Amino acid sequence: MLDFFSEVRADLDSVEQQIKQVVQSRDPLLTQTAMHLLNAGGKRLRPAFALLAAKFYESTLDKILPLAVALELIHMATLVHDDVVDDSMTRRGTPTVKANWGNKISMHTGDYLFAKSLVLISHYENPVIAKVLAQTSVKMCEGEIHQISTSYSSKQGWRDYFYRIERKTALLIAASCQLGAAAAGASERDCQALRRYGHQLGMAFQITDDILDMVADPKLLGKPIGGDLRQGIMTMPVIYALEKSQHSERLRQLIEIPDKTDEQIHEAIELIKEAGGIEFSFNAALKYVEKAKGNLARLPDKPVKETFHRIADFIGVRRF
Amino acid sequence: MLDFFSEVRADLDSVEQQIKQVVQSRDPLLTQTAMHLLNAGGKRLRPAFALLAAKFYESTLDKILPLAVALELIHMATLVHDDVVDDSMTRRGTPTVKANWGNKISMHTGDYLFAKSLVLISHYENPVIAKVLAQTSVKMCEGEIHQISTSYSSKQGWRDYFYRIERKTALLIAASCQLGAAAAGASERDCQALRRYGHQLGMAFQITDDILDMVADPKLLGKPIGGDLRQGIMTMPVIYALEKSQHSERLRQLIEIPDKTDEQIHEAIELIKEAGGIEFSFNAALKYVEKAKGNLARLPDKPVKETFHRIADFIGVRRF
Repeated sequence: MLDFFSEVRADLDSVEQQIKQVVQSRDPLLTQTAMHLLNAGGKRLRPAFALLAAKFYESTLDKILPLAVALELIHMATLVHDDVVDDSMTRRGTPTVKANWGNKISMHTGDYLFAKSLVLISHYENPVIAKVLAQTSVKMCEGEIHQISTSYSSKQGWRDYFYRIERKTALLIAASCQLGAAAAGASERDCQALRRYGHQLGMAFQITDDILDMVADPKLLGKPIGGDLRQGIMTMPVIYALEKSQHSERLRQLIEIPDKTDEQIHEAIELIKEAGGIEFSFNAALKYVEKAKGNLARLPDKPVKETFHRIADFIGVRRF
Repeated sequence: MLDFFSEVRADLDSVEQQIKQVVQSRDPLLTQTAMHLLNAGGKRLRPAFALLAAKFYESTLDKILPLAVALELIHMATLVHDDVVDDSMTRRGTPTVKANWGNKISMHTGDYLFAKSLVLISHYENPVIAKVLAQTSVKMCEGEIHQISTSYSSKQGWRDYFYRIERKTALLIAASCQLGAAAAGASERDCQALRRYGHQLGMAFQITDDILDMVADPKLLGKPIGGDLRQGIMTMPVIYALEKSQHSERLRQLIEIPDKTDEQIHEAIELIKEAGGIEFSFNAALKYVEKAKGNLARLPDKPVKETFHRIADFIGVRRF
């Protein structure tokens, strides 16, 4: 993603510095866990979107920086809370004492990062920022619980999937685009156009994420493929294949196995590919990308508009 | 506590109704877990303080209600997150799969309740409310992590203890008193006086809580005594006894045992009592109560002032 962010590279460096300052705590353990998360890196996609959205308008970095930092802190908080979930899953119900300490610390570290984001947000006079982020947070929690309560169930359909990926990814990216513009003083109409761009791009992003989880080079992905299947998370390629595959009964069986072997994972992925699940999902992502770009037409004609186009195109074809 | 709240009884019923509405979610599991928490009851101490503080001023319920509900949601969120911690402790590091699902659901339910509180808070125009609650939340997280990282360590002293109980209890009660007044349009001076009252009362409340954990009738307490010792949490009676007891080395040994037997718990409590730890803590709580009442003098002379006095006196001598 890096080269798309050249316009805001210096601003992103400021975001990085600010995050480092913000996560400092009086408690050495807390500082340590938060810094660990920070140093683990990440694309800083949400701050980048907020900073880029602000570039459509005349604004200064100090107006956008607290928001940009807050968005990344919220994202980090959800990641660390997700770790709690994943950790206990992969250990199949028997975490060691150490893993358990890890879970507790992870939970409170996530809470801490989230609370820190609120302190930053509380300095904005524009009430829209706190409102949108509060509503987004509620929906993100709903999505997490939905994912847990429906996992390993092959009965869920399209509605469940869209409900979940909207909450998992699209809403926070939508908020990043919308609020970056809002903090820069954009009109409500522009803010909504950027929100829709972010929402549709976020949907495309999550669909491509779900595809990559099945087809990526594990080295580029940074983890073994099939993670979603292992965790019982039903993604678009799976739902499509369950409808269209000639071997849908076998696929259904495989999906509902709680502790799948690597062979079972690979068999499931082959059935999904064979049924056209990857191609279908790829096309669905491209449709979202096109929709997202449609929102850019009426925004101010600034160089950053081209960047928004290019990011959208990249999301549609990304391989990592 | 119930009879102290007679002035706000009808308002507290409205709080209860509002909480019920607020925790409704599209996800049936989430509604279920949140309703379960709600029905578990509780003294609704924080909403009561906010409502009572507002009674010093001319105000209407609709101005205080969202805050009162938000305060209870934040408190419930911390309780459910505490459960995650306690659960894994009592199971001594080997939770069942079921317990683990429970942990994950508990974590996200807590996140959800907290996020819901933000939606309520985001409707206030007065920026102080969001700011104070954000800062309070940060400090509450710091306290949680501090409690985990220092547990079973007999080396911590008074500073650690006060740091922790301030974050665990006093700050949210302080915020409840302060912000109830702020939402009702009180002057900054009055808000600060009520904040100090809440802070000192909260300290007294937590000290008496820590005493009761050692000396209460388990039936009134609703759980076996010695819970803090079991979890390795060092409270005032323990810290005092470690300094003053003639058997402090034996006490230190007992405290640092991770999985204590009931006999060890009772031996530790006897040593603490013998060293005067309970009496000392009782007197410390009474000092905080007196300090708390000192803040009331310059507040408006309304009937509710007498209630604040009576609540403080009750906290100092409570047995449940």
